[in-house]
Amino acid sequence: MTTAPARPAREADAFRDVAQAQAAYARCIDGDRLEEWPSFFTADAHYRITTAANHREGLPAGLVWADNRDMLADRISALREANIYEQHAYRHILGMPAILEESTDGVRSETGFLVARIMRDGATSVFATGRYVDRYVYDDTRLLLAERTVVLDSPAVDTLLAIPL
Amino acid sequence: MTTAPARPAREADAFRDVAQAQAAYARCIDGDRLEEWPSFFTADAHYRITTAANHREGLPAGLVWADNRDMLADRISALREANIYEQHAYRHILGMPAILEESTDGVRSETGFLVARIMRDGATSVFATGRYVDRYVYDDTRLLLAERTVVLDSPAVDTLLAIPL
Amino acid sequence: MTTAPARPAREADAFRDVAQAQAAYARCIDGDRLEEWPSFFTADAHYRITTAANHREGLPAGLVWADNRDMLADRISALREANIYEQHAYRHILGMPAILEESTDGVRSETGFLVARIMRDGATSVFATGRYVDRYVYDDTRLLLAERTVVLDSPAVDTLLAIPL
Repeated sequence: MTTAPARPAREADAFRDVAQAQAAYARCIDGDRLEEWPSFFTADAHYRITTAANHREGLPAGLVWADNRDMLADRISALREANIYEQHAYRHILGMPAILEESTDGVRSETGFLVARIMRDGATSVFATGRYVDRYVYDDTRLLLAERTVVLDSPAVDTLLAIPL
Repeated sequence: MTTAPARPAREADAFRDVAQAQAAYARCIDGDRLEEWPSFFTADAHYRITTAANHREGLPAGLVWADNRDMLADRISALREANIYEQHAYRHILGMPAILEESTDGVRSETGFLVARIMRDGATSVFATGRYVDRYVYDDTRLLLAERTVVLDSPAVDTLLAIPL
Repeated sequence: MTTAPARPAREADAFRDVAQAQAAYARCIDGDRLEEWPSFFTADAHYRITTAANHREGLPAGLVWADNRDMLADRISALREANIYEQHAYRHILGMPAILEESTDGVRSETGFLVARIMRDGATSVFATGRYVDRYVYDDTRLLLAERTVVLDSPAVDTLLAIPL
């Protein structure tokens, strides 16, 4: 078997391409390869975490806000220094992406997610749920996130800030 | 970017088409756009909610039963008047659809699901699990539900009747 | 409608093929058709269940280990005799598969999963999470598992051994 190209020479399919990008993203985080996480974004990507209530009312995202990829790398460095992330394990389960718009340049999509947290003693619970509101752009044949807004269902999110979503 | 047609002029793909229909369905409910929910069904659609035990024994679906789209619209009106749905948030996470049959007319599929409930204080739990047993038909290029049987894993389902599944 | 072939005469698509194989696999187990479970594997398939900690350190899978399909069939026979599986219901929710390698022979993929357990009284909880590390091969037009390593997120897995994962 040979390594598959990120997007083989076949008919374009936004659904498949987004599904693959999302699967790789979740696999990166849950595999604790956090240093690779920024590579899923464009250099000038906008990344935000907000609550459903704030998002509905058009309020600015107050929880996490970044407008370039370097800020995401900084965030991972801080996490590693704080040594918080490694205390538990997380598992991101993503639903199928809803493709809202597509063109030769990119794709807008929305994807529901659930994050489970696994404690050291094995106790497992639903840690967070929400949806990704995304704008992807093609970099050659690979989709990169130009914008990701993480809209959390829960209004109580202080404890969510430690891990990438 | 331009808005994508529901089913672009490319090779037919029942898996992709059902995945997109399911993703749009979940997004509609979780986005609290319940008035749009009936639009995912044909005018004479059959919609039922039953338990795995009843379904296995061939017993009629006693929990929720509708044999046309207007009954679904009535159900949403009743929900809105009762003002029950808005008290919590829900998140539908759907697995990948298993395509059981496909033709130029439509698709039979089955899809596992999990619904998380998010309380106002942020506490999140698994509210319901089960599977959708579906028959989709093509309306021009879009798939509509002609039959959806929601088979709940739990035998205790009184509290499940408030929200669309 | 006519029954669809497992892989219709259309352009090959590893993502769709793996997604369909995974959906059918989950449907088989959750539908309690456990006797069909071995049929998703090749005759000389390797099947293992291990923990993330053991997997990371390259330790052998100590929980469950089989190197052919007959051992999987034996496992189901033992489960049926012990009559353990039927006491609860389970629901496997699989994320989208990440396609790591593909060729005309087969596909390597990785897929996150969550298993919910539904007690007789309806109480539902997250029972297990983890990922499938898989090598699929084409048998004519159908994908069979030549290797599946189930990597559990939880370090406490004694109680997980009763059900197929």
